[in-house]
Amino acid sequence: MARILTVTLNPALDLTVRLPHLDVGEVNRSESVLVQAAGKGLNVAQVLADLGHHLTVTGFLGADNAPPFDALFRRRGFVDAFVRVPGETRSNIKLAEVTGRITDINGPGPLVSGAQQDALLDRLDLISADFEVAVVAGSLPRGIEPQWLCELLQRLKSRGLKVAFDCSGAALRAGIEAGPWLIKPNDQELGEACGQLAGSDAETAAQVESLRARGIEQVVLSQGADGVRWFGPQGTWQALPPAVDVASTVGAGDSLLAGMLHGLLCGWPAERVLRHATAVAALAVTQFDFGIGDAQRLSRIEDGVQVRALA
Amino acid sequence: MARILTVTLNPALDLTVRLPHLDVGEVNRSESVLVQAAGKGLNVAQVLADLGHHLTVTGFLGADNAPPFDALFRRRGFVDAFVRVPGETRSNIKLAEVTGRITDINGPGPLVSGAQQDALLDRLDLISADFEVAVVAGSLPRGIEPQWLCELLQRLKSRGLKVAFDCSGAALRAGIEAGPWLIKPNDQELGEACGQLAGSDAETAAQVESLRARGIEQVVLSQGADGVRWFGPQGTWQALPPAVDVASTVGAGDSLLAGMLHGLLCGWPAERVLRHATAVAALAVTQFDFGIGDAQRLSRIEDGVQVRALA
Repeated sequence: MARILTVTLNPALDLTVRLPHLDVGEVNRSESVLVQAAGKGLNVAQVLADLGHHLTVTGFLGADNAPPFDALFRRRGFVDAFVRVPGETRSNIKLAEVTGRITDINGPGPLVSGAQQDALLDRLDLISADFEVAVVAGSLPRGIEPQWLCELLQRLKSRGLKVAFDCSGAALRAGIEAGPWLIKPNDQELGEACGQLAGSDAETAAQVESLRARGIEQVVLSQGADGVRWFGPQGTWQALPPAVDVASTVGAGDSLLAGMLHGLLCGWPAERVLRHATAVAALAVTQFDFGIGDAQRLSRIEDGVQVRALA
Repeated sequence: MARILTVTLNPALDLTVRLPHLDVGEVNRSESVLVQAAGKGLNVAQVLADLGHHLTVTGFLGADNAPPFDALFRRRGFVDAFVRVPGETRSNIKLAEVTGRITDINGPGPLVSGAQQDALLDRLDLISADFEVAVVAGSLPRGIEPQWLCELLQRLKSRGLKVAFDCSGAALRAGIEAGPWLIKPNDQELGEACGQLAGSDAETAAQVESLRARGIEQVVLSQGADGVRWFGPQGTWQALPPAVDVASTVGAGDSLLAGMLHGLLCGWPAERVLRHATAVAALAVTQFDFGIGDAQRLSRIEDGVQVRALA
């Protein structure tokens, strides 16, 4: 199994609070509170750990509320290479009422100084030779410019790592300039990367080809319940997941990315790579936690994935 | 300094979220999120630790969200004698808008089984000989009857410990039957303990005497900004704190209890005991965290406390 580095620049403490009804200004009773140390790079790492890989995790972590993250690292056996920064990692609170109404309260997160940004680049220079693949995923914290992210990707690439990259908006556009090995946009993000949203499948394919021409070898286009299109050296493939009961779509894209990396690192044939990755993502939507909760259910879902090569 | 045991049967993870405005059903931005491992017994323990005592902490702790508590115990040097129970310790979320409007969302906490209740009593039998004083404070978790609390206090008392007890409602009434050494009700709780709210000072004094006649040596009556009345073998005393800027009144009663225990364990004269304890409580309302944050400010507040012996 591979040694993989994941970079989470802006992790989050996700709190999901379930309650019958929210009365503002009153004392309410919740049914449950789920606290999860999260962030795209960490979510990908959890799935990859369940698939048998060795993970080192890095990025920036607020020093004042690190214990839930430390506990996750211990539980998952992650090597902790995070740069600690003063303050608290952002907390994202989701108040979920039984009616389905959702109120989000998202925190600001720490401000990352230039010195701390340098510290992370230095740390990556020190450790990156140990890894085959680096995953850089998620949003940027306050204080970091998109151009710095491009430099980070270039450094990882110059050290010989395959860089898988999953961001959106200005960070996505800046990162693409570095020519990462693999990106995993959704339709919206592909449009952001290319300057306009594609209308037809042919327009989408043309946009993807323009990105591949800039040195991005693998483009994995996630389209939610409509499945996945994958453009790479092994051709263009499409997969449709079977219908599953949805618990939470949070982290499904991270699971898709982890599944794709797993198959590619294992050297599987394209059809098997995409079938397995699509099933890992479909499994993720059936559960609240990150990772492969039920291997037998994964196997059943995999049997129900439809994969075909596109022209 | 003394070896003190605090029993927190229903600890809580307190989350204080500050935000400009709460729009229900929307995505809101918070300014800060403060997470505190709390519960009356643990709050008392933090103040006693700052006053120089050696603390062992016990009660029931949910296994699934213990890291913030583990971190508190490490930071404070508490010996951890908690019984772990399946599930999560309750989370109490306070959404504080800049207008001053507060929305509370209080969690259910774990259900404590009979076997786990037995496990705690067995643990107390094993360790209680090591302590001079036990503090039993806070509410009861689901699954525990008030009568069980009375048995717990009786066991501690039978092992020779001085038992300080701070509860409300049915738990307070049941615990009083065990004849603890010290109780610290507010006016409302004194009324609950005696079956009706006192109107005049004379009625209050009569109620306190009825409790002292049942073997409760020390009654510390907390009356918020109106100060403290203390009924004990050293007579009846009253203290008025100086006016202070209020940051949070959460934990002020716990600080009063800790201050009283400290003075009594040190064998100080009554006037000094009450002056110091009243100042510790007044300091607590000037800060968000538990403990003695600023020893110099404590000293200044102490100078401003007015203490007098009542007839």
